[in-house]
Amino acid sequence: MEIIHDWTSFGGRQLVYKHHASSTRCDMEFALYLPPQAMTAPVPLLVYLSGLTCNWENVVTKAGAQRSCAKHGIAFLAPDTSPRDVSIPGEDETYDFGAGAGFYVDATVAPWEKHYQMRSYILDDVLPLVAENKAIDAEKVAITGHSMGGHGALTLALSTDRFNSVSAFAPIANPMACRWGQRAFSGYLGDDQLHWRAYDACALIEDGASVEHILVDQGLADEFLDEQLKPDALEAACQKADIPLTLRRQPGYDHSYYFIASFVEDHVAYHAERFQ
Amino acid sequence: MEIIHDWTSFGGRQLVYKHHASSTRCDMEFALYLPPQAMTAPVPLLVYLSGLTCNWENVVTKAGAQRSCAKHGIAFLAPDTSPRDVSIPGEDETYDFGAGAGFYVDATVAPWEKHYQMRSYILDDVLPLVAENKAIDAEKVAITGHSMGGHGALTLALSTDRFNSVSAFAPIANPMACRWGQRAFSGYLGDDQLHWRAYDACALIEDGASVEHILVDQGLADEFLDEQLKPDALEAACQKADIPLTLRRQPGYDHSYYFIASFVEDHVAYHAERFQ
Repeated sequence: MEIIHDWTSFGGRQLVYKHHASSTRCDMEFALYLPPQAMTAPVPLLVYLSGLTCNWENVVTKAGAQRSCAKHGIAFLAPDTSPRDVSIPGEDETYDFGAGAGFYVDATVAPWEKHYQMRSYILDDVLPLVAENKAIDAEKVAITGHSMGGHGALTLALSTDRFNSVSAFAPIANPMACRWGQRAFSGYLGDDQLHWRAYDACALIEDGASVEHILVDQGLADEFLDEQLKPDALEAACQKADIPLTLRRQPGYDHSYYFIASFVEDHVAYHAERFQ
Repeated sequence: MEIIHDWTSFGGRQLVYKHHASSTRCDMEFALYLPPQAMTAPVPLLVYLSGLTCNWENVVTKAGAQRSCAKHGIAFLAPDTSPRDVSIPGEDETYDFGAGAGFYVDATVAPWEKHYQMRSYILDDVLPLVAENKAIDAEKVAITGHSMGGHGALTLALSTDRFNSVSAFAPIANPMACRWGQRAFSGYLGDDQLHWRAYDACALIEDGASVEHILVDQGLADEFLDEQLKPDALEAACQKADIPLTLRRQPGYDHSYYFIASFVEDHVAYHAERFQ
């Protein structure tokens, strides 16, 4: 593992690492912000999963999360959204499948299954690697994300006991019921929709998965709201399953990082409270 | 004038305009953030001048200034750094001269003098245009900037009475004494260094220009510190002229937007206090 960037930010360090991942069988990059408090004692970790087309850089440069993380003494991990340059024909052809669009699933269908193991990458590669850092309190890990990454945060939190708390920005809340999810799941997992249910927040909840609480922010001027995101389905599933959901519908906000930047402080504070 | 972007951000509006400017004789773009307070009463304006290679987008997406401006009720104006696409041979050839590198001077040398009138653009085009907006209190205008834009902020504040207060991030404080400034001034203004003095903060101060106070942040890990920025020269000039300068040397910070994002809150608060 090597450090490829190291910036001072809000009194802490914004690091970017490159490492070989055994799950995805390729080199991967991730960003880790260490707040100033990490100099003196281990700090909790907030994982942020990014959306379609993004890598670690988008949230790191545009969301301003470092400010809130420095305030609360929380480290901030931003992995990439897929393997890169793994020589699969078509991997770079579309924005919503292949490179930049790993959907946080473990692919089972050729040719994607050899490298597109993003669920395993997050859980078994990058999290254990970051947990080895003495600056991190590996017992306190929370997860959030945006759009495809909001889907990743919800499904990883619902399907494991690895995360203290979960939140999401404009998540793809019911991917089995939208074009983005259908395309990704059929491509990575095949046509049997039974195999899709492990990667759909609403289906997971219907099938009995649960968490203590969920915070979701959703912009009402989001260009993908009706077709792709389906917050109403998440709301119905949570209601039926008695999972407390705080779904904040934010008038005027779209799907961009202007939306995320406006509410990231609330999400960091939400997780900070649950780390106590 | 037309609005080409309109994002909701921290309860306010992040707007981007396109307009024809008579000073630069071309279409120009600028960004204007209106905080939520501007919905009910006119708010003061903070002008931010960007550095080499930037346009309005860098500070708008990376600095997080909207958060502080929403807190204090201040509008935030980010103009472009030069004319664009004006068909001058070589305008796009180098990062430190021509497009993206207008240096906030009124060029006097052909072929640049026809379009590269960035001092006049700021003072006589974009500021009057923004002042027409009923959401802006045109009596309260402050200025800041980064690197080349820090130079612009200092020299515009020192050479006019248009600004309530001035601050800068890692300004090119003595351009006559560094390669960036020498190249730009000889190209835009010709070889007679007497004509350069109106665009050099230290020379302006030596020649009697003054302001009430200056706030400067400078990263000590800034890769351009010794060769290009010359904060010591600004400090010496201010000391000799009895101009109160708060020069904060920040260990670890480089020249990037990670540095600006870390301290933009302090600068917005500094100007907010002086608007009272």
